Amino acid sequence: MLVVMKKGALEEEIEGAVCAIEQKGFTARPIPGGERVAICILHNHGPVDACLFTQLPAVKEVIPVTRPFKLVSRESRPCDTIIEVGEVLIGNGHLTVMAGPCAIESESGALEIARVVKERGAQIFRGGAYKPRTSPYAFQGLGEQGLKILAKVRSETGMPVVTEAIDHEVYDLVEHYADIVQIGARNMQNFSLLRRAGKSRKAVLLKRGMAATIEEWLMAAEYIMEGGNNKVILCERGVRTFANHSRNTLDLSAVPVVKQESHLPVIVDPSHAAGFRDQVVPLSRAAVAVGCHGLIVEVHNEPEKALSDGAQSLYPDQFFDLCRQVETIAGIYKTSTNQGCENDHVVAEVRAEKETGYGIGFLPAKI
Amino acid sequence: MLVVMKKGALEEEIEGAVCAIEQKGFTARPIPGGERVAICILHNHGPVDACLFTQLPAVKEVIPVTRPFKLVSRESRPCDTIIEVGEVLIGNGHLTVMAGPCAIESESGALEIARVVKERGAQIFRGGAYKPRTSPYAFQGLGEQGLKILAKVRSETGMPVVTEAIDHEVYDLVEHYADIVQIGARNMQNFSLLRRAGKSRKAVLLKRGMAATIEEWLMAAEYIMEGGNNKVILCERGVRTFANHSRNTLDLSAVPVVKQESHLPVIVDPSHAAGFRDQVVPLSRAAVAVGCHGLIVEVHNEPEKALSDGAQSLYPDQFFDLCRQVETIAGIYKTSTNQGCENDHVVAEVRAEKETGYGIGFLPAKI
Amino acid sequence: MLVVMKKGALEEEIEGAVCAIEQKGFTARPIPGGERVAICILHNHGPVDACLFTQLPAVKEVIPVTRPFKLVSRESRPCDTIIEVGEVLIGNGHLTVMAGPCAIESESGALEIARVVKERGAQIFRGGAYKPRTSPYAFQGLGEQGLKILAKVRSETGMPVVTEAIDHEVYDLVEHYADIVQIGARNMQNFSLLRRAGKSRKAVLLKRGMAATIEEWLMAAEYIMEGGNNKVILCERGVRTFANHSRNTLDLSAVPVVKQESHLPVIVDPSHAAGFRDQVVPLSRAAVAVGCHGLIVEVHNEPEKALSDGAQSLYPDQFFDLCRQVETIAGIYKTSTNQGCENDHVVAEVRAEKETGYGIGFLPAKI
Amino acid sequence: MLVVMKKGALEEEIEGAVCAIEQKGFTARPIPGGERVAICILHNHGPVDACLFTQLPAVKEVIPVTRPFKLVSRESRPCDTIIEVGEVLIGNGHLTVMAGPCAIESESGALEIARVVKERGAQIFRGGAYKPRTSPYAFQGLGEQGLKILAKVRSETGMPVVTEAIDHEVYDLVEHYADIVQIGARNMQNFSLLRRAGKSRKAVLLKRGMAATIEEWLMAAEYIMEGGNNKVILCERGVRTFANHSRNTLDLSAVPVVKQESHLPVIVDPSHAAGFRDQVVPLSRAAVAVGCHGLIVEVHNEPEKALSDGAQSLYPDQFFDLCRQVETIAGIYKTSTNQGCENDHVVAEVRAEKETGYGIGFLPAKI
Repeated sequence: MLVVMKKGALEEEIEGAVCAIEQKGFTARPIPGGERVAICILHNHGPVDACLFTQLPAVKEVIPVTRPFKLVSRESRPCDTIIEVGEVLIGNGHLTVMAGPCAIESESGALEIARVVKERGAQIFRGGAYKPRTSPYAFQGLGEQGLKILAKVRSETGMPVVTEAIDHEVYDLVEHYADIVQIGARNMQNFSLLRRAGKSRKAVLLKRGMAATIEEWLMAAEYIMEGGNNKVILCERGVRTFANHSRNTLDLSAVPVVKQESHLPVIVDPSHAAGFRDQVVPLSRAAVAVGCHGLIVEVHNEPEKALSDGAQSLYPDQFFDLCRQVETIAGIYKTSTNQGCENDHVVAEVRAEKETGYGIGFLPAKI
Repeated sequence: MLVVMKKGALEEEIEGAVCAIEQKGFTARPIPGGERVAICILHNHGPVDACLFTQLPAVKEVIPVTRPFKLVSRESRPCDTIIEVGEVLIGNGHLTVMAGPCAIESESGALEIARVVKERGAQIFRGGAYKPRTSPYAFQGLGEQGLKILAKVRSETGMPVVTEAIDHEVYDLVEHYADIVQIGARNMQNFSLLRRAGKSRKAVLLKRGMAATIEEWLMAAEYIMEGGNNKVILCERGVRTFANHSRNTLDLSAVPVVKQESHLPVIVDPSHAAGFRDQVVPLSRAAVAVGCHGLIVEVHNEPEKALSDGAQSLYPDQFFDLCRQVETIAGIYKTSTNQGCENDHVVAEVRAEKETGYGIGFLPAKI
Repeated sequence: MLVVMKKGALEEEIEGAVCAIEQKGFTARPIPGGERVAICILHNHGPVDACLFTQLPAVKEVIPVTRPFKLVSRESRPCDTIIEVGEVLIGNGHLTVMAGPCAIESESGALEIARVVKERGAQIFRGGAYKPRTSPYAFQGLGEQGLKILAKVRSETGMPVVTEAIDHEVYDLVEHYADIVQIGARNMQNFSLLRRAGKSRKAVLLKRGMAATIEEWLMAAEYIMEGGNNKVILCERGVRTFANHSRNTLDLSAVPVVKQESHLPVIVDPSHAAGFRDQVVPLSRAAVAVGCHGLIVEVHNEPEKALSDGAQSLYPDQFFDLCRQVETIAGIYKTSTNQGCENDHVVAEVRAEKETGYGIGFLPAKI
Repeated sequence: MLVVMKKGALEEEIEGAVCAIEQKGFTARPIPGGERVAICILHNHGPVDACLFTQLPAVKEVIPVTRPFKLVSRESRPCDTIIEVGEVLIGNGHLTVMAGPCAIESESGALEIARVVKERGAQIFRGGAYKPRTSPYAFQGLGEQGLKILAKVRSETGMPVVTEAIDHEVYDLVEHYADIVQIGARNMQNFSLLRRAGKSRKAVLLKRGMAATIEEWLMAAEYIMEGGNNKVILCERGVRTFANHSRNTLDLSAVPVVKQESHLPVIVDPSHAAGFRDQVVPLSRAAVAVGCHGLIVEVHNEPEKALSDGAQSLYPDQFFDLCRQVETIAGIYKTSTNQGCENDHVVAEVRAEKETGYGIGFLPAKI
């Protein structure tokens, strides 16, 4: 934290700021510059609230230096986290494709789509049982019936399933049936939902809020990890901007930045970002090319009959092309993203964690 | 809804689109233009999902025409809603000032601030018992103890109190103690929280989400009204933009637009919009000048000691100036915003509603 | 400038960064913190390019501390600049209303509107002779003929006139006819146009770019002042955001921030911000209430016949109401914004400047 | 254009709107719906200004239907435009890499970088002779000396060169020396510069403005084409959003949308979008994967010594990796983007144009 004094701040004002900082238990070191004095705040354990100092006399502004996140930070864990869901691995060196309809509409329909996406390349099945809808008059999902269909899909196809828990009330049920519990973009800062996810042993797919900075997104993941659940998969799904040619603006630069700042896997949802089917395949290629660890894509065997978001759902053949293309792209640069971790060390760490029943999400980085 | 066909769409493609529309139960009327054909969808009861038609062959785009909200719309209720909270009226012709600290920190502190803000012009006391915080490591509020302090403030000062329910779990408690339950910006699309608010008889202060369009905001209010609670107060608190000189960009044009589209009262929170104390008084003047029905402002007797958001809290003397200034401004244009409702009719309507135990939030528009 | 090193940076990497900074001619002072080292860059004359250091080994990030603007900064000139245009004063203590049609369409029309707006409260006449249009097929203005009409308006009504110079080519002509030369939002970073304005003796109305930060806007003013022209009037006209209920999002918090950072007068254009007539009067009241030094408003006696932007032009009666309302609002807080300058000193300074033929734009702050 | 009437609009108000529309020379067709009437405007030649009708009595809103661009539209030219610059082809089926330093700093430096980028895979050399800079105190480029160095680079290496014309004044000079004239993001709506480019025979690289919609961007290209220059290359370079982890937010969904709406080639500038070197290679891969026709990338042999934007310039080895990776990616989906044009027809059209000395930019789409 750097406290910048106004030009011409008096000696006693500077001393006053130093005192105020030290009274809070920090070390203050004033740095006289050519035009003004800045005071560095040192030895803070954890982030400092800038507001504490902005209002001192003669303070011009307060500039944060340290990142506020800890557990999600690559500085606290240099190696990539790999999350194991059933037999599927998510994270460094793996490209995981999750696919399925926007909403679960019927058992036969879900099973049919599941077989189609598995055959064409998906490893995890997605489908909404509870749908967050802007309008109270819109279709809200089948609820528990939808969850039971998802369980049926898993037992019939062997694919793990991911579905959204739209609130605290349904978390227990969703957790019971699903392999990965999705927290949607609108709930990214629903802190009680994040705390609930932190108490779960099931992996969490945490979507980026539509106006969230990367820092806020990682802080949301920090809530989950702080609660004891290390199995967090981040998901970029587009942010809201002035641009009106796609539903949201997919922010692919988030992927390399998240990979630099955090050890958590990060996947991309091109379907909700785009809103239009024609953009989904190109954006999927781009997402994999930028280095994400996976995709979550909407596919429907009859999009024109879908009860929600049909316009962004791929036809099975498009999805097949997509899988084929992204697999080739992933092959191109894969070796270059390896973080050079000592795998033995990581494995040992995981073993230790397993023994204590904690953090079983961590696996050694793939060579 | 207008379905625009591609230039050169074939006769059978147009007929196909007409059929598809009529199969969904709507009336389709094709309009041949100079360059292309557009098809109007008529006789839809309620909003139509554009996605149903974007994917038909030779359809270029689908343009919605009707607004998706009903109960919150001024078209469904031409007169302004006035909400009665204790002896305070919120809505057309009234300017309601809510003030208090960001968070409740102690009984003595809260009482002291409450007396200060009441004396200087506030009618409703605000203070957070549950605080939504970006970081899991930050102060999260006193919880129920804070709610009890708020109840004490009300009994000591006579002011109604407003405080946030951050999730479904605490709604019962907050509803029990508070006169107005606040739903924060991050929860604006927490639909289960909105449904819970819809079941309540207590008034709701619904903040605009930081990336919410006015339509989405009004749809969130629709969720509450659809549940049976008419007492919704909308609150503009700034949106997220590229601008970095204030915490959020206060969007004052939202006020006249909301007043045009809806009958619900709309107030402004300049404190969270600004993030810096120096901007709060000017923005409060501007908010009242643009025509809002009230303000919710953070005031602290010792901002430098506040546990959260001290930098945006006004000193008591600043708040006094603010109240004096906005009162004068409100006097200037007040007469011009009257909606010309027949008051007798409105009173009668309210009486009828009262007899059926429904909608007691409505009061006649003030002359 | 603060150069933040990565956690665990080696001693030689820190020394390397210090060397690199000192080789550029600055003083480097390393500050060891609890987790990492930061290096302060001191004795820089003028802003330092962060890029010079972001790429050094083990550097995590570079944080700028000093503002890059000098001449426009309130630190370089603590008293408000007041600009004299004919007999009209623009700046501290004055509220200047500029009004007229979007585009000049005919002499008789312009004269009629000019008389109307003067009678109802305008002090300066606005009207476009050259119109920047998104489409090459749209009406582009009358050109020099329009400028001549503006001159006629001035001689007939006594009002100074403001009009836009859309490019370098027309600057000479516009400067010849106009009293204030407007630089539009799309040209805010047309640096050769800014340099041209810097060579002029005529006052400049510099609109904020639609995605410009306040720093970029003030840097654009710095270009003009650096060229020798002190008479810069800043104009907030809305920024581009996701919000779609108004043409742009009027950012009124910019006004108090600009007044804090700079000594230059700042006015507001509610017409282009809103895009719809119904929002213009409320936003004008808000702009004056937030503390701006003036307004520039579109008024037309027959908006429905206007060749451009008729939908945002006020009817004469609306403009009359606006003038009456904003005058009252300005009276409320006017005394509170005085900067406490010693007026005698300022007058003397201006006299001195006048003798050297420089800076005649500065006038003493009004008591 | 669709004119939507208010609910409960009177018969005479609807007739009034119909009359007003027909007085402007259009055909008006009212469509009575369940709740309200909408009036379609037909037989408009070119776009209609919505403002003409928004202000009629009882009109709720006006919704545009037709796109305002013509010459740039794929509807007016179904086949992809391929632009020939020297021996390099830009457009459908080709992937063109432009590379070089941000600014030309010296002849020896430029030549060295040029040899490096050519060897590693670039086909066109980029380098700024005139630099638009936010600060008047920053390095502004070498000017004509820089252009001469570019000409030297071309004659020594055989690569065509692209450089920016920052204003009308320097256009003649830049056009004389360069093969492709760049119009920067800040000048995207500098309409006199666009008109100047329209008169040129040299190809134009038109960057997207940092807050430009795709429609505005294509309208800027329309200005150039309307002036007679068909050789326009569009360049996505990121837009301004709230996100602060990259300099701009690269909007890759713009690429498929532009390819759908227009026949013009579209390339991507990952360097200015990112602002940080670490993001440039991943974003380049993503840009090619999404389907762009080329890249423009900053490369420097000694980035740490660059006078501008060194932090985003790639090292030669990174650029080599980039070229190798994007070439492979382009190979994956190339065949799928072919537009199925009849090439003979296109060739003939081009020949005809060549005979009249017009439109020599068009070449047959590659098989």
